[in-house]
Amino acid sequence: MAADIVAIAKQFTDFYYSTFDTNRASLGSLYRDTSMLTWEGQPIQGRDSISEKLTSLPFASVQHKVTTSDVQPIQNGIVVYVTGLLVVDDSTNPLQFGQVFNLTQEGDSFFIQNDIFRLNYG
Amino acid sequence: MAADIVAIAKQFTDFYYSTFDTNRASLGSLYRDTSMLTWEGQPIQGRDSISEKLTSLPFASVQHKVTTSDVQPIQNGIVVYVTGLLVVDDSTNPLQFGQVFNLTQEGDSFFIQNDIFRLNYG
Repeated sequence: MAADIVAIAKQFTDFYYSTFDTNRASLGSLYRDTSMLTWEGQPIQGRDSISEKLTSLPFASVQHKVTTSDVQPIQNGIVVYVTGLLVVDDSTNPLQFGQVFNLTQEGDSFFIQNDIFRLNYG
Repeated sequence: MAADIVAIAKQFTDFYYSTFDTNRASLGSLYRDTSMLTWEGQPIQGRDSISEKLTSLPFASVQHKVTTSDVQPIQNGIVVYVTGLLVVDDSTNPLQFGQVFNLTQEGDSFFIQNDIFRLNYG
């Protein structure tokens, strides 16, 4: 694994959230059949099911703004914890969110093995 | 690994936060020399350094109230993502926090390999 995990994490989160905000349907390529997503407490497993969940979320437009991003090495990868703001359908009242990724290295790239997402209500 | 990871996660978070709130000095037993903590962006490695950090946090009393807890299996362990409220020194204005643990199984118990803590300001 490359030494600069901070750069890897930033590259990943930049790509993940810009893809989420512009072309959710293509997020599936970041997951594998073993991948797990827990979305607001709902467990979903496998690339196809996760992709279906993400594309069927009930909002037309969404924008993620990352506030903090922390990273640590794990076995064969990194863990990334992101907090930030979510602007849904141009609402003037952004929601706080937190998201955890365990990324597994595969050759020169990474896939999402574990993904846990939560909105934090104030 | 036992099948009921939800029960394991609950047992862990109950123990961790009750110990944090009543006897911080003994949290060190949950970490190993390889363990990593990122506390509000500050990286700390190893049981002794982590224990020192946790015991030197500048508040006299603290109480954690868990709002959500999500768990998924990982290699040799589980990942747990907790959100909740932190009441510091009996303040009437609790702080929101988020915390990620990657727990590694060791015989019949688990230690904390990765720990990332963030306060979420509203």
